[in-house]
Amino acid sequence: MKEEVYYGKGMRIVKENYPDLYEGINKLNEVIYTGKKLDYKTQKLIAIGIVASRCDEKATEKQMRSGMAELGITTDEIVDILRVVLLTAGMPAFNKGMRILEEITGK
Amino acid sequence: MKEEVYYGKGMRIVKENYPDLYEGINKLNEVIYTGKKLDYKTQKLIAIGIVASRCDEKATEKQMRSGMAELGITTDEIVDILRVVLLTAGMPAFNKGMRILEEITGK
Amino acid sequence: MKEEVYYGKGMRIVKENYPDLYEGINKLNEVIYTGKKLDYKTQKLIAIGIVASRCDEKATEKQMRSGMAELGITTDEIVDILRVVLLTAGMPAFNKGMRILEEITGK
Amino acid sequence: MKEEVYYGKGMRIVKENYPDLYEGINKLNEVIYTGKKLDYKTQKLIAIGIVASRCDEKATEKQMRSGMAELGITTDEIVDILRVVLLTAGMPAFNKGMRILEEITGK
Amino acid sequence: MKEEVYYGKGMRIVKENYPDLYEGINKLNEVIYTGKKLDYKTQKLIAIGIVASRCDEKATEKQMRSGMAELGITTDEIVDILRVVLLTAGMPAFNKGMRILEEITGK
Amino acid sequence: MKEEVYYGKGMRIVKENYPDLYEGINKLNEVIYTGKKLDYKTQKLIAIGIVASRCDEKATEKQMRSGMAELGITTDEIVDILRVVLLTAGMPAFNKGMRILEEITGK
Repeated sequence: MKEEVYYGKGMRIVKENYPDLYEGINKLNEVIYTGKKLDYKTQKLIAIGIVASRCDEKATEKQMRSGMAELGITTDEIVDILRVVLLTAGMPAFNKGMRILEEITGK
Repeated sequence: MKEEVYYGKGMRIVKENYPDLYEGINKLNEVIYTGKKLDYKTQKLIAIGIVASRCDEKATEKQMRSGMAELGITTDEIVDILRVVLLTAGMPAFNKGMRILEEITGK
Repeated sequence: MKEEVYYGKGMRIVKENYPDLYEGINKLNEVIYTGKKLDYKTQKLIAIGIVASRCDEKATEKQMRSGMAELGITTDEIVDILRVVLLTAGMPAFNKGMRILEEITGK
Repeated sequence: MKEEVYYGKGMRIVKENYPDLYEGINKLNEVIYTGKKLDYKTQKLIAIGIVASRCDEKATEKQMRSGMAELGITTDEIVDILRVVLLTAGMPAFNKGMRILEEITGK
Repeated sequence: MKEEVYYGKGMRIVKENYPDLYEGINKLNEVIYTGKKLDYKTQKLIAIGIVASRCDEKATEKQMRSGMAELGITTDEIVDILRVVLLTAGMPAFNKGMRILEEITGK
Repeated sequence: MKEEVYYGKGMRIVKENYPDLYEGINKLNEVIYTGKKLDYKTQKLIAIGIVASRCDEKATEKQMRSGMAELGITTDEIVDILRVVLLTAGMPAFNKGMRILEEITGK
């Protein structure tokens, strides 16, 4: 389910202690991923691209893993995302993305 | 054509005075947008998302315009990209993207 | 009112054409600025600091203006924020913030 | 003391080998945190917000820890900062901040 | 003179109203650009690269202009910096840098 | 050799499975580091500065290591780069760079 996507360690503390914030995030998440035209998978590809273009390793790994597990996004598709990351964000972001992908796929 | 995508003002000076660099960029661009699995339009959606998640106004506008003109990307589709931008990059990036979209579409 | 804070040009199009997204943003905004301990003004000072530490000029200006108009945040207080921006984000961000502040205050 | 805030591993080498740089940083730090209107704690809250809105994990952890130890900043207050981070910088930054907070507080 | 490098609009207000901050910045600036090994011009080339790799247009323009005026940095040298920007930060940053350079040189 | 600079873990998978992309990157890399005026070492100093001004730890470490090993860049020279990083990107980036440098040099 979409609302599970961003459940990392930190979200447990939010759920238990800050229920208003938790509910707000859930509501937002639902609205985000219920696009008018683009399907959930395409939005997820975009999310992976955005996160990978930055330098947050854990967020990149989490987005890649959830996209592969939930939506069947393949290694080739992620490399195609990383091609765009290379052009728009440079080699360090591309390198990091490839390294994380390699760790995930165990290649 | 794909290789025309990034022809802004600055690229003319590159073409005329730094032909090696120009050729290298063209070569790269071609490699980037010849993905194995994702089609050009999907890669373009990702590019718009990445650029919009940053604060470079002109790059965001250029990506949106070329995506709409070349590939028929619609307003609704860009809003669906901006939904993901909101979640992954916050309100300022979302606001900026919506404002640029409004200026482009004249709504 | 808090929910008016982020109403820029682009938000009108959201309100009219994407009511689900508009509602989600309003809901989020409300949750964000109803902190458990910090009051709204302190949260606003933090928001100004975060936005000023980036390079989005319009977002910085909008945050400063709304903070000054709604909450009576003073020039001296914004300079104190920009001191922290200088330390944590460097001179370009500080310079930009000071220039915007000067334009707003007309000094 | 304020001037101790940014003493990480790397600063020792600065202190010993580059005394001019060390002194310049100390001087700057003092000027930064001697705001005209905002007290040190408020400036620290802003610093935590700025650093958490980026993806430098160690800097975020250090800022949170020193804020809690030196100034008695509470978990609830940091969550209120992270609410603003969520709005202005998106979920990945928020998630990272919550995870670090959880690790610090051991919750 | 080095200490004049960062005198933009915003700095006048700092000089007049926040002399402690002004002095701290001057002191820092002096320490920064008195490197042990690298000369001022090389440090300036690095500063141009860092600022151009971000999206702050005005800061990029100011750094380029002051580097050209004060230190005789040439168009070719700036293009060589922008080559590195392309590799490490992607096409949007490179494009922006080339466009600003074109505007400065009037080519 | 220059083309070896960015060979990290992730690049092996590119070389083996995406030869077109690999070739495009090699071609780009060659074009980047064959500047018209600035020599390779100066371009490398700039690359270190840009990467260190962001928060990607591994990229910063890799750039520093390859610059020291290939080109004989010294600790003092890297500290001179980090001075510029401090001014243009703030203390967290400077701190991170100093910590990585300390780990590399074992001081």
